[in-house]
Amino acid sequence: MKQTVKKMFATADEAEGAFYDAFERANLSAMMAVWAESDDVVCVHPQGPRLVGFEAVRESWMQIFAGGATLRVRASEQRRFDGSSVAVRAVIERVSPAGEDAPVSLVCATNVYELTTNGWRMVSHHASPMVEPQRAQAEEPPPPGYTLH
Amino acid sequence: MKQTVKKMFATADEAEGAFYDAFERANLSAMMAVWAESDDVVCVHPQGPRLVGFEAVRESWMQIFAGGATLRVRASEQRRFDGSSVAVRAVIERVSPAGEDAPVSLVCATNVYELTTNGWRMVSHHASPMVEPQRAQAEEPPPPGYTLH
Repeated sequence: MKQTVKKMFATADEAEGAFYDAFERANLSAMMAVWAESDDVVCVHPQGPRLVGFEAVRESWMQIFAGGATLRVRASEQRRFDGSSVAVRAVIERVSPAGEDAPVSLVCATNVYELTTNGWRMVSHHASPMVEPQRAQAEEPPPPGYTLH
Repeated sequence: MKQTVKKMFATADEAEGAFYDAFERANLSAMMAVWAESDDVVCVHPQGPRLVGFEAVRESWMQIFAGGATLRVRASEQRRFDGSSVAVRAVIERVSPAGEDAPVSLVCATNVYELTTNGWRMVSHHASPMVEPQRAQAEEPPPPGYTLH
């Protein structure tokens, strides 16, 4: 007897691994298997709008993957905040075109996972272009601030 | 007998309220009373570098508050992810100079709190300028994407 088994993630780390794997493979169904099927999930892509709800998030990844270019995405310098049902990974993403010796873009990301009845799922992904400390210091005024723009 | 009593936050919401209150009052000691005293706390101000550790985060708020301008900061459109020891608030911050009829800047923020032995404390604040959906759609190419810059 054939059954459709939903992929479950036993830990937040498994879900995080599946997220970056799906991202690199530009695989929409694998990506959306990581996200909680909820109207309250939140996704902010670098310099993109704030998207709320599974369908809006799905649409955004579909558009990103439709570009055709597969990316190499490596998460590093992870800080972990682990609870029994909510877990957060704050990382620096090193993003570059796959297979090319191209310069790496750095992105700050805060990933939030929740333990659902279907295992650990992503409920929030907040990504923004990373500013290098040196560059920030070279600017006037020097401190990083809540600029009004 | 006089004792120095550390302010405790009984819930993540109390800590979140104290964070925005300290922010508006530009009160450094009140702000840092919200943060966990840890080398692993993470803070990304809008268009700023990624700061890690209590001292780096303290320094950044000191610089922001040293500017002298007090801001009105209202968090809205909150999405909550609540665990027993880790909680997340994803909000839109409406930031404007206090007391002025100035235009409001919109900032996306993801705030992470952890239950410590000293109550709920902030362990991560990730803020980035918000892009309006209309504006994103008017751009070419239209989808929000992982742009390499």
